[in-house]
Amino acid sequence: MGMVGGGLTSFIGPVHRKAAGIDGEIELVSGAFSVVPGESKATGEALYLNPNRVYETYQEMFEKEAKLPASERIDFVSVVTPNHVHFGPSKMALESGFHVLVEKPIAFSLQEAKTLKKVVDKTGLILGLTHTYTGYPLVKEARNMVAAGKLGAIRKIYVEYPQGWLSTLLEKSGNAQASWRTDPKQSGMGGAIGDIGTHAANLAEYITGLKITEVCAMLNTVVKGRHLDDDTSMLIRFENGASGILMATQVAAGEENNLNIRIYGEKGGLEWRQMEPNTLVVKWLGRPMEIIRAGQSYLSDDAKAFTRTPAGHPEGYLEAFANIYRAFTKAVRDYKPGKKINYTKYDFPDVEDGVRGMNFVQTVVKSANSSKKWTPLK
Amino acid sequence: MGMVGGGLTSFIGPVHRKAAGIDGEIELVSGAFSVVPGESKATGEALYLNPNRVYETYQEMFEKEAKLPASERIDFVSVVTPNHVHFGPSKMALESGFHVLVEKPIAFSLQEAKTLKKVVDKTGLILGLTHTYTGYPLVKEARNMVAAGKLGAIRKIYVEYPQGWLSTLLEKSGNAQASWRTDPKQSGMGGAIGDIGTHAANLAEYITGLKITEVCAMLNTVVKGRHLDDDTSMLIRFENGASGILMATQVAAGEENNLNIRIYGEKGGLEWRQMEPNTLVVKWLGRPMEIIRAGQSYLSDDAKAFTRTPAGHPEGYLEAFANIYRAFTKAVRDYKPGKKINYTKYDFPDVEDGVRGMNFVQTVVKSANSSKKWTPLK
Amino acid sequence: MGMVGGGLTSFIGPVHRKAAGIDGEIELVSGAFSVVPGESKATGEALYLNPNRVYETYQEMFEKEAKLPASERIDFVSVVTPNHVHFGPSKMALESGFHVLVEKPIAFSLQEAKTLKKVVDKTGLILGLTHTYTGYPLVKEARNMVAAGKLGAIRKIYVEYPQGWLSTLLEKSGNAQASWRTDPKQSGMGGAIGDIGTHAANLAEYITGLKITEVCAMLNTVVKGRHLDDDTSMLIRFENGASGILMATQVAAGEENNLNIRIYGEKGGLEWRQMEPNTLVVKWLGRPMEIIRAGQSYLSDDAKAFTRTPAGHPEGYLEAFANIYRAFTKAVRDYKPGKKINYTKYDFPDVEDGVRGMNFVQTVVKSANSSKKWTPLK
Amino acid sequence: MGMVGGGLTSFIGPVHRKAAGIDGEIELVSGAFSVVPGESKATGEALYLNPNRVYETYQEMFEKEAKLPASERIDFVSVVTPNHVHFGPSKMALESGFHVLVEKPIAFSLQEAKTLKKVVDKTGLILGLTHTYTGYPLVKEARNMVAAGKLGAIRKIYVEYPQGWLSTLLEKSGNAQASWRTDPKQSGMGGAIGDIGTHAANLAEYITGLKITEVCAMLNTVVKGRHLDDDTSMLIRFENGASGILMATQVAAGEENNLNIRIYGEKGGLEWRQMEPNTLVVKWLGRPMEIIRAGQSYLSDDAKAFTRTPAGHPEGYLEAFANIYRAFTKAVRDYKPGKKINYTKYDFPDVEDGVRGMNFVQTVVKSANSSKKWTPLK
Repeated sequence: MGMVGGGLTSFIGPVHRKAAGIDGEIELVSGAFSVVPGESKATGEALYLNPNRVYETYQEMFEKEAKLPASERIDFVSVVTPNHVHFGPSKMALESGFHVLVEKPIAFSLQEAKTLKKVVDKTGLILGLTHTYTGYPLVKEARNMVAAGKLGAIRKIYVEYPQGWLSTLLEKSGNAQASWRTDPKQSGMGGAIGDIGTHAANLAEYITGLKITEVCAMLNTVVKGRHLDDDTSMLIRFENGASGILMATQVAAGEENNLNIRIYGEKGGLEWRQMEPNTLVVKWLGRPMEIIRAGQSYLSDDAKAFTRTPAGHPEGYLEAFANIYRAFTKAVRDYKPGKKINYTKYDFPDVEDGVRGMNFVQTVVKSANSSKKWTPLK
Repeated sequence: MGMVGGGLTSFIGPVHRKAAGIDGEIELVSGAFSVVPGESKATGEALYLNPNRVYETYQEMFEKEAKLPASERIDFVSVVTPNHVHFGPSKMALESGFHVLVEKPIAFSLQEAKTLKKVVDKTGLILGLTHTYTGYPLVKEARNMVAAGKLGAIRKIYVEYPQGWLSTLLEKSGNAQASWRTDPKQSGMGGAIGDIGTHAANLAEYITGLKITEVCAMLNTVVKGRHLDDDTSMLIRFENGASGILMATQVAAGEENNLNIRIYGEKGGLEWRQMEPNTLVVKWLGRPMEIIRAGQSYLSDDAKAFTRTPAGHPEGYLEAFANIYRAFTKAVRDYKPGKKINYTKYDFPDVEDGVRGMNFVQTVVKSANSSKKWTPLK
Repeated sequence: MGMVGGGLTSFIGPVHRKAAGIDGEIELVSGAFSVVPGESKATGEALYLNPNRVYETYQEMFEKEAKLPASERIDFVSVVTPNHVHFGPSKMALESGFHVLVEKPIAFSLQEAKTLKKVVDKTGLILGLTHTYTGYPLVKEARNMVAAGKLGAIRKIYVEYPQGWLSTLLEKSGNAQASWRTDPKQSGMGGAIGDIGTHAANLAEYITGLKITEVCAMLNTVVKGRHLDDDTSMLIRFENGASGILMATQVAAGEENNLNIRIYGEKGGLEWRQMEPNTLVVKWLGRPMEIIRAGQSYLSDDAKAFTRTPAGHPEGYLEAFANIYRAFTKAVRDYKPGKKINYTKYDFPDVEDGVRGMNFVQTVVKSANSSKKWTPLK
Repeated sequence: MGMVGGGLTSFIGPVHRKAAGIDGEIELVSGAFSVVPGESKATGEALYLNPNRVYETYQEMFEKEAKLPASERIDFVSVVTPNHVHFGPSKMALESGFHVLVEKPIAFSLQEAKTLKKVVDKTGLILGLTHTYTGYPLVKEARNMVAAGKLGAIRKIYVEYPQGWLSTLLEKSGNAQASWRTDPKQSGMGGAIGDIGTHAANLAEYITGLKITEVCAMLNTVVKGRHLDDDTSMLIRFENGASGILMATQVAAGEENNLNIRIYGEKGGLEWRQMEPNTLVVKWLGRPMEIIRAGQSYLSDDAKAFTRTPAGHPEGYLEAFANIYRAFTKAVRDYKPGKKINYTKYDFPDVEDGVRGMNFVQTVVKSANSSKKWTPLK
């Protein structure tokens, strides 16, 4: 594994490295960690890497790694840079023969995303996307329950992603995370909607298996002086006639990372909260509510395959992240040139999800700027 | 106290009677409990009332009671009939010289509500409205916290009222509650929006002290064969620039009566849930979350005045209901003909709230039928 | 209904009156509310009672009430005085022909309790005891589940009653409640053990239907200067071989009234917490946990008979208290002189529970003073 | 790093490996994974190890590793075998010059534990013990709060460790984990008390900084046919006069791994639950309860040093485990022959905790067999 981005001040870089390290199946051997001169080398040293395989640019990295013997060179690269540097390295990596695991959103614009999709299709290589939250075992259990019809036809879907960390103008106080995420030049056309709204939409579509077909959105920039939206709420409609609400905000002061979803069908509803991810609440019409717990013997094989500890030994965010790596690298190991990968079998977010996410952002921005109630999402 | 409606099969009648009975300050002495022949008498008997003061119609009741000596006749009447019979008895009671406590919504239409307002203004008598949920002590505490600026300027308001009891076509199976609530002739132009959506709107405006100025609403009839909406979601905007979401549904299968509200300001947020009403969660930016509990010595006098038991001895729905009675009857006792009542001092929902609620329902229905995104709520 | 005790500064008097008032079935008409000169009259006035039936002493009350016509005089009396004045009025009431509902503990000593039992047996009248917590609907549901064998044979029972209100020497600061409860002359030989430990023991025996047969107890006076225990922990054994722990403390600073119980059998366990009394958690071996909720249609008739509101409209402490009144007065209404009452049918704590409680206190004190591990509880 | 035990069917072996892998600071390079012929090799292969460094016995491993150049050989060894094979490899590892991280309990008997202590003292090498639960950041925060006197003098300590997985005679159904843990020849004199009771005692002493001085214990073998205790409850006293309860059971059907602790001082109490480890509840006398959350900026440096993700991105059991590795390996890196290690600085359980744990087990068994109430724990 190689890495683009993830230098010493990065938030998500270490998360990727820890997640990749948990199962002992992946070794980081190469990286172009930063465009700040010297920082890539420094990061490589801190990570005990062979300095020969630590590069100043991703271009150099892909060129040189591609020339190494197959048994030695990296199999895939993780792209963990800010949004505006997702496309470049991902495209070049694929074109240099490396599989790619890229942070979400997949690109800076829908256009870039669609281009990447073409490159994936052309090269036949694997592109994974870290919509981390679908990596949780009970999210998979929830999806299985819906697919098995346990809730009956789905009627209502409420998905929320409240955070509070951007309640003040943090980007003006030297916070690196806040700076790039609120900068349209680095983040793209969406602030909160791109950063966390896409996770919410992805989670809703993943669990229900239903596509959002229309949105009626409000985008706000609540904190004065900010250059991108930090708050969104929208009414949503799904392909089967279900409807609901999607909310994502970064100005809910006091909230941490409170992604949650509630889904109601004819027979009952389910509720999952990322901050207590090992519990899935199922409410039934006319019989007692059930609490489903990670690690239990009664879970589906899909949930079990992504669990590392017995019930009552909590797993968390890093393990969910590691599950994306587990599924992606399983596909990478099974990859055979010229043979199409069956994404369903491996269960990780891919280039389709990436295009979908960019499309979602663009449509929400369009809806927010429109005085018409509904805007279709194709 | 007299009562109109609340016969033997009524849900809300017994709730009113129990709530009125808790504090030992109010005695039910008269009633016109039902239009079903004989049922009013039967109800009176079951309640140990003097049969001479149990009437077949509210008209008869007000006529005869008005002729009794002042020391003997009822002081006020509770109107607990279905929506389409709120206006008639309320108006006649006022015009007969009785104060009125009426179930919400105050009337069948905005027009009726406005007429009632005029009657209240003209007679100078007191009209209270059982928006029960504002009777909870911690709702009052929340309002105090917001008013005191503890959260800073309010930015986001999310209020939800999910129920699941109308997930099936219950009205076709002989359920009396379901029947009239889903019948436009008895319920009015709104189903879920009138029955529970108004509670949600009232709660949000009560706690924040802010008026909703615009709505962007979706109204759905989810269960086939139903004649009124059973589900609504809307984006909302408030007078100070805050925005949020209001959701009310009766088809969230497995939900009981899960009214809840979250309010975020610049410095923190608060969260209250009706199903665990003795707990108020306060989340702060940069310091530990606090759990405020009913019955504690640190609460405001407003909250304390509406609490009957020490901390840890839970109070519930009947006590909240009793608080509406407590505040209303306090005003009734203080009433002096010709002197205007200071509603703020007593803190119970009044005719203004009633008009506001009907206006809200009408505006939401208008918005739902419009292809424009926003509809003003005046 | 008449009342002994419950003057203006009483905590439990108003609780009794509110509980008795909820269902509109009981009318307080008489009282000897206080031994403080004038306070009884003042209380009667505040309660709108006929002054002729407000007495300075309970002796006067029983003498005069007994002479009233049957249709007019009180049916029963509630004794809500401090512990050392439970025996006198209860005995005299019974001997004057009145049924009695007495606060727990039933008496000051085991000897008194046994004497009362004899008076009950001799008069054939009804004595109820306000072990309030068994009045909660879900406590009854829990008892039904255990009796029906749903958990299999019971193995472990953990019951706790932590409070924190006596964490300081409150009795020295003029707090009336603290004063008599920590005074051996008014409270008896037990402090926390008598005040709340008996509730815990009663709850455990009520739900499981099993008697405690042995205790191994530690009694502590944690706060310096206090004259009675304020804290206890004990190992306990039950008649069927089950074992467990009983804890009761009034110095768990920050706790409110956190009575809770967990019971485990061969197949699963259940957990109930008084502070969220409308929820019963059932944990199963090998299948999802269930959350049972008050007011739901799937509950047993026993639980339903003691519920006043639909699911999601929370009930609390006053309603539980009202359930003791409801069951007790049902028996009082059915009472026929000379005919034995079937206590099981009515389901309220009675004189047997009272004797049992005093025996428990005496045994725990004995165990605490012993260097032997186990002391039998007969 | 090398490993003794942890073959393909091991529960705790993979946990160690995953925990060691998270931070990318530790590399497993050698192992004697099993005494089952061939399994050690097979495990090594599955872990991509160099087969030359995978051994059939730990004796062979220590001999050969000791002869490798310092830059190449293992720095330390993790001993993850069943209890009866903790002593042998730990002792030999130390005597061969390797630091040791050993699973708890440190040994099969108190005698072995004391011998190990002597070897540690003599060699000056580092021995760590995986009392995992003290690795959680909020456990460290709790300890800091107590040490800083925020709760005032500690009065009551309640620690519980309920599990339900041994509710049936699982050891007879071929479950490898159940088999050795219920076998006195592999597990030692204690069943539940050794397996999980020691964790509870360690946690209580760790957070409070107080030693248990006396126990009054009941040990039960609840499931018929089992050869060791599966359930214990005890009253405990601490050196400062505080008292409390320790409960540990493996027959609480439906419980997962519900270790939890509540500690009350003069001013308030705190509560932590392993199954939701990122939340620390603090209850205060006379002011609102506080919820302290992992990853927040207001935490102590001690807690922050052991956190990997921002607030709201939950951490779990593997991260707590990784924290033991992090602290232990920090000490290993700082180790200089002849220089004494300052254990307080690194904050991981060591040989003293190991001796303490064995002493605790032995004392509890003694107490359980005694008819005297209290048995001192020295």
